[in-house]
This record gives sequence, C-alpha cells and structure tokens, in this order.
Amino acid sequence: MDNSRKRGVHRLFLTLRRTVEILVFMDSNGLSTHLNVETLHGSLTDPAISSMNLLNELIDEYPVAISMAAGRPYEEFFDIRLIHTYLDAYCDHLRRDRKMDEAVVTRTLFQYGTTKGVIADLIAKNLAEDENIDAAPESVVVTVGAQEAMFLVLRTLRAGERDVLLAPAPTYVGLTGAALLTDTPVWPVRSNENGIDPDDLVLQLKRADEQGKRVRACYVTPNFANPTGTSMDLPSRHRLLDVAESNGILLLEDNAYGLFGSERLPSLKSLDRSGSVVYLGSFAKTGMPGARVGFAVADQRMADGGLFADQLSKLKGMLTVNTSPIAQAVIAGKLLLNDFSLTKANAREIAIYQRNLRLTLDALERGLGSCEGVSWNTPTGGFFVTVTVPFVVDDELLETAAREHGVLFTPMHHFYGGKGGFHQLRLSISLLTPELIEEGVARLAALIKPRLP
Amino acid sequence: MDNSRKRGVHRLFLTLRRTVEILVFMDSNGLSTHLNVETLHGSLTDPAISSMNLLNELIDEYPVAISMAAGRPYEEFFDIRLIHTYLDAYCDHLRRDRKMDEAVVTRTLFQYGTTKGVIADLIAKNLAEDENIDAAPESVVVTVGAQEAMFLVLRTLRAGERDVLLAPAPTYVGLTGAALLTDTPVWPVRSNENGIDPDDLVLQLKRADEQGKRVRACYVTPNFANPTGTSMDLPSRHRLLDVAESNGILLLEDNAYGLFGSERLPSLKSLDRSGSVVYLGSFAKTGMPGARVGFAVADQRMADGGLFADQLSKLKGMLTVNTSPIAQAVIAGKLLLNDFSLTKANAREIAIYQRNLRLTLDALERGLGSCEGVSWNTPTGGFFVTVTVPFVVDDELLETAAREHGVLFTPMHHFYGGKGGFHQLRLSISLLTPELIEEGVARLAALIKPRLP
Repeated sequence: MDNSRKRGVHRLFLTLRRTVEILVFMDSNGLSTHLNVETLHGSLTDPAISSMNLLNELIDEYPVAISMAAGRPYEEFFDIRLIHTYLDAYCDHLRRDRKMDEAVVTRTLFQYGTTKGVIADLIAKNLAEDENIDAAPESVVVTVGAQEAMFLVLRTLRAGERDVLLAPAPTYVGLTGAALLTDTPVWPVRSNENGIDPDDLVLQLKRADEQGKRVRACYVTPNFANPTGTSMDLPSRHRLLDVAESNGILLLEDNAYGLFGSERLPSLKSLDRSGSVVYLGSFAKTGMPGARVGFAVADQRMADGGLFADQLSKLKGMLTVNTSPIAQAVIAGKLLLNDFSLTKANAREIAIYQRNLRLTLDALERGLGSCEGVSWNTPTGGFFVTVTVPFVVDDELLETAAREHGVLFTPMHHFYGGKGGFHQLRLSISLLTPELIEEGVARLAALIKPRLP
Repeated sequence: MDNSRKRGVHRLFLTLRRTVEILVFMDSNGLSTHLNVETLHGSLTDPAISSMNLLNELIDEYPVAISMAAGRPYEEFFDIRLIHTYLDAYCDHLRRDRKMDEAVVTRTLFQYGTTKGVIADLIAKNLAEDENIDAAPESVVVTVGAQEAMFLVLRTLRAGERDVLLAPAPTYVGLTGAALLTDTPVWPVRSNENGIDPDDLVLQLKRADEQGKRVRACYVTPNFANPTGTSMDLPSRHRLLDVAESNGILLLEDNAYGLFGSERLPSLKSLDRSGSVVYLGSFAKTGMPGARVGFAVADQRMADGGLFADQLSKLKGMLTVNTSPIAQAVIAGKLLLNDFSLTKANAREIAIYQRNLRLTLDALERGLGSCEGVSWNTPTGGFFVTVTVPFVVDDELLETAAREHGVLFTPMHHFYGGKGGFHQLRLSISLLTPELIEEGVARLAALIKPRLP
C-alpha cells in the first residue's frame, strides 16, 4: 500500500474503534449514561478493594450481630459539647498565646489556610510529650487523616516503573489502597509474632536489587499493628533502623495504636538518628475520628535544601489544598486542654481497651482453650487479636457467622489482598462491653467448634 | 560469556547502581538525610507547579502590597460564632428531622462516617434551589473541597497511557495539579471571550483520535471562569453538551463562581439530558473556605449497575476515608439556616463582588482607558478581570510591581503552565475595599504606562 492508502486504512481503523467506544458508552436510548468499569483506573477492579467493599456490604447487612469487626474507637465518652469546648480552647490559645486579634483568629478558622496546616507547633508538642519524638514544626504536614499522609508519601516516592514499596503481610488495607492509587507495587515482607522480620526485609531488598527494582520505603506498624495486634520488641526496632539506614530506604512508621498498651516501647521515629523514618500520625483513635486529622513528620533534608515535608506539602496543595482549619482546631483544643498529652486525654479509653483485651483473651481461653488446632496471639495492647483455626475462613464463613450465629469478625485474607491468611480471623475489641465480649466469643466458639476435625 | 558469567556481571552492575543510589541518598556523614527531588514523582518538578510555588513565595514576601492576586472570598462578614451556630443547626436537624437520639447525633459527628458523606441530601436540596439541578443524593460524593473531587474524577478516568483530558487554555491551576498527580496529559482547547470554543473542542477530539488517544473528559468552567472571568453564552452551552454527547466524553463542570453574577445562565448540569456532565461543586466561596467541603455529582450509570459516584467513593475511601463530618456539619448548618439557598446566604457578598467588579472596571477605564494596546475584558460576575498589555508580563514584572509600586496581581502565564499568556495578567477583586481598588488600579497604571511603546 502507498502511504496515503495506509493513512486512510489507519483512519478507518481509528474511526471504527472510536465508534465501538461510543456505543459502549451509550445505552440503547442513545443516552451516554453508561460507563464501563473496565475502562476506568485499575484500582477499582483490584481484588483487594472489591473484597473490602464486599466485606463492608456484608457487615451492613447484619446490623444486629455482635460486631467484632469494626476498628472504631470507643464511643461512650463522646459528647457533642466537646466540639464547642475544643474550638473555643483553640481560639483562646490564638488570642492569648499567639496574640491574634479577633479578625485574625476568625480568618484562621474561616479562610483558606496554609497547606502544611495551622497546628504543626501543637502537634510537635504532643509528639514530644507522648512519644519522645523531637519534631520541628516545619517538618510536620497536617493531613486529612493518616490516610492522606500515606497517599502523599507514596505519590511522592513513586517516580517510575522501577519503584516498589515493601510492607508486612498481612498489612493495613489503607496502605494497600494508597499503593493502588499511586500504581505502586507492594512487595510483602514476612511478619511473625514479633512484627515485621528484618531478616526477610534484607532478603527482599536483595531480591528487588536483582530484579532492577528500586525500593523506596518499607511500611511498618511497630505497635499493636492492624490487623494482627502484634508489636516489635526493642532489638528488632534497632535492627530495622539499621537495615533501613544501611540500604538507604525510608521506613514509613504508622503508629495509630501506640498509646493503647500496658507497656510502651519507643517509636522508630524517636530512635531514628539518620532521618530514615517518616512518621505517619493519626488522631482518629486518640483525638476524634470525625475531625479527620492526621499528619506526617518528614524531616528528611532534600539535596537542594528544604525538607521532604515541603515536597509532601506541594502535592497536598494539588490534592486537598489544606486540611480544614476547623477540624484542626478541634484536635488542637483537645491537645491544649490535656497538656498536650493524649495518653492523659485517653486514660479512660486506654483502661477500657486493656480491660476488653484481657476479657477477650480470657473468653477465648474458656470457650476455645481445649480445642486442638485453634490458637490466638496475646497482644498487650491495641484493638486486635488474631485467631487461627484449622479450616478455611472466607467471606462465606463470615456470612454464616452473621446469619446463623449473630457474630461478625474480619477474615484475615482481606489484609493479604486475598492472597493468604485463609485460616485466620481478626477480632476487634474496641467498641464492646464486657457482656458483648462474653456473648460474642461464645457465639464464635459455637461457629468454630462444629468445624473442627 | 556463558550464562553464569553473564549473571555475575549483571549482579555486579546492579550492586554498583545500588551503591551509587545509596551514596546519593546519604550525606557526607553517612546519614541518610538527603533525598533528591529528581528521584521523586515528576509532578514535583513540573514547571506549572514550581512556578505556582514561586508565585506564592513572591506574594508572601510583600504582605503590605495591595493584593489583586488572591482569589479568596470576602472576609468582613466572617464571625467565629457562626461556626457554633451552624454546628448546632445541623445537630438540631438530625434530632428534629432525622429523629436521631443524642447518641446517634453525637456518633454522626464524632465517629468515622460513610465515605460518600453525611450531607448529600442537603446538598441535593441546595442544588435544586440555587442551580435548578435535579441530583439524587446517592449521586453526590462529598469531598475535601472541589480539589479532591477533581483528583478523584481524574484518577478514576485515567486508566492507561492512551487517556487524555481536554481543558481550556488558560485553566485553573488546581485542575493542572490534579492532572499532574494522576499523570494525565492535559490537551488545551482554545478559549475566547465566550469561554471554551466548542469548534476547537471538535478539532481536538479529532486530533486525539488520529493520535490513538482516548479523550475521557473535558474540564470546563462556564460561569466567570478562574482565571479569565469569562462566561459561556447559552447557545455555546447547548453546543458543548451536543459535542460531548455525540462523542461520548464527559464534561467536568466546575462552578465555583456561578452565584456571583448579575445574570445567571443555567449550569451545564441543569441542561444535561444525556448524563454527560459530572458537576464539581465547591463551598469554598459560597459556604466557608475553612470547612474544606466540596462535592461531585456523578449520576452516570455504570454498565454493571450502580453509579459513577460509587466508583469515585471507592477511591475516596483509599484517599481520605471520608470528609470530616464536623466540617460537613458546618456547611449543612449554613444551608439549613438559609432555606438551602446560598444565593440568599450570600446576598451581601454578591452585592460587594458586583460593586467591586464595577469599581475595578471603572478605575481601569479612568486609569488606562486612553492607552493604546491595553485592554481588559468585562465580566458580569465572579472574582476576576483579565488585562492585556503590549509587553511581557512575567514574574520579574510582578516582583517590580510589588517592590516599586506596592501592588500584586497574577501573571496569566501561570494558568498556561508557563506556555503562553505572557501579555496578560489576572486581577482579583474579591477581597478589596473601594479605596484599595482605586489605589490598586492607580498603582497598576503607574506600572503599565511607562512600559507602553
């Protein structure tokens, strides 16, 4: 064919393809109301996300079942008046400590605010008080929950096809989600009763090298991880920092549950001497979920000066512009009224989570202690317990549990992206009363026992 | 070389590359505190974003200059007590109209909420009242400002390398930002005094087809666009809808300034009969910037049932989980206390913006009316006026204006991603008093006149 002929055929092909696409887009009335999910971003059809959606639908279907599934904070101390009290406390702080006149106070809450947030200094005080972390306020980016912080860090680090993220398996679904949104492959690192395994991390780094991949970071939850409930001991924390430093990778430390333990080990960030750790902070469990305020501490220096936090902030400006200063003010007020200590602010909640954990472990022992093949871990804090059973735990079993036994849990495979964990389930203890724990575990035992070999 | 030899050389190469990367990562003390922006996501070094950052720094440097640069809403009617009033109004609504008991009201504001938001029904009432848009509440996704809605729509639509977005040139920088975060190429469509040109849109669609690209959507601001201030007339709106429908592309309608005009033309969404329009809603100018609440109306049916809104919501769950219900409550309270009419709620502000626009146009006429080569458009609403001059308007000129004349504006090239608009500047009128307008335009004239040929 000559060139003009070739072009003609090519145009015809393009026109045909376009026509097919338009037909797919339109419905039989010629209305272009149909979109096909197959033509949308791959994250929407990823098994990890669709399975999570199915799970939520299933849980919604059985609202009267005892829910040992939801990882939400305890609600009995919620009081609507506290929102007003916290807002007032922050405004008073601006007037008294920051010497703002009324117009500036009002503008701070009403108007667009600075992208990095308006309460970084108060968050830094909280980190010093509760976590022994020395964070310069300019290294703090206030975000719409820790979830936005995760997205920003992954979006910043994923520059090209070579870039991968390491994370323990099983892992928090929010991390999986942020990775999907940024097209970041997540390579699993083995996780055991002591949390992420630094030796396997070394192996995975080597494997990535051999495959020409660039590992940008490793996500880790050293304290009472979601979903397993496990924590890392102190030597493992030091070893993990050593591995990160000597391999030039960042550690993304998620510490949403660190406060809720009987004994507290130092966070990675408080031990970090080499700028290896980006700290992902959440106020959802310790402040107020409805404020949707979290943050990142990113004090890494950029080669051209400035901080990694400023790079995150640049992307935040394109994503959410800034975190609502009203929402920030609510969290700030809570910090101000509790001498910057969320440990102090949550004294009652911590006691309840500790009690619920103990009651759950006791009830498991009474209900399932004699059953061969059934075991569970014994976290010393946090919201979660992992139960292992000698049969398959899938969403079908969950539906049976809900329908026939009136109890809900989370099949662990959801935290493996559907690629493992089929003999485990996650129990959440944060929202329950002693009576509900007793009854919930009894119902769970009634589900499990007939299925034992 | 035999195979094992080859593998050895390959490993050596990988080890060397890794070593170089680690050295780049570490500073001379062996501390891994240096990150290089060249190794991060490309958006961070995109000229559009770095120029916007430079612009903001420049503006911050001259806080006493008269700012005709900031697109922020008028502040004089802000009152901190309104936050409490609005929160109370929403809680009363939940008790009275939704029959919630106190525990459920409290949980609605304090706890994690549904991803799509808790005030979709009230937003639907507002859209019916102010925009004559008939939106089913389930088609509304409440977002962290319209910015998050833009990101979610682009992230959903950008499935692969072929997918491109069309947008008028010049365009809102937030759109450019959301496109950068999703690696979406933005193809410019010609824009004139009547807004985006539907004929050029047809040409661009043809061009995209020929290049094997898939145009997913066209972004458009039919009312008082940022940055130009221009609006589309009614025939162009109908023509644009026809083009979108017959080509099976979505229109992303941004209507942040629609309320602020002397005459109101129907929004694209209110004219949409084919499900071609995704409406991007902002409460930043009409509600309260500090709430950071916006929304998308995405009532397109998916081929497998469900709504496009549900796809956006899935991604939102991985990005920000949900929009703060406290922030949503503030906006809801304002809607409830104003019979769902933001036109009514903003009566005083609308009068001020209209006055400021008239005063600005009058002052331009007086100060620059006789100058050859100097012209400006005459928007009938919104926040912005475009001034055209016969010399180059770059950031250097802005700095001169700030330093020597004490006046700030926005060089238009920032809205072309630095690829055009070098003879125009954007004036913003929203934050000014009559005195500041008079003086600001006089200072602008003093900058411009000596530079005329």
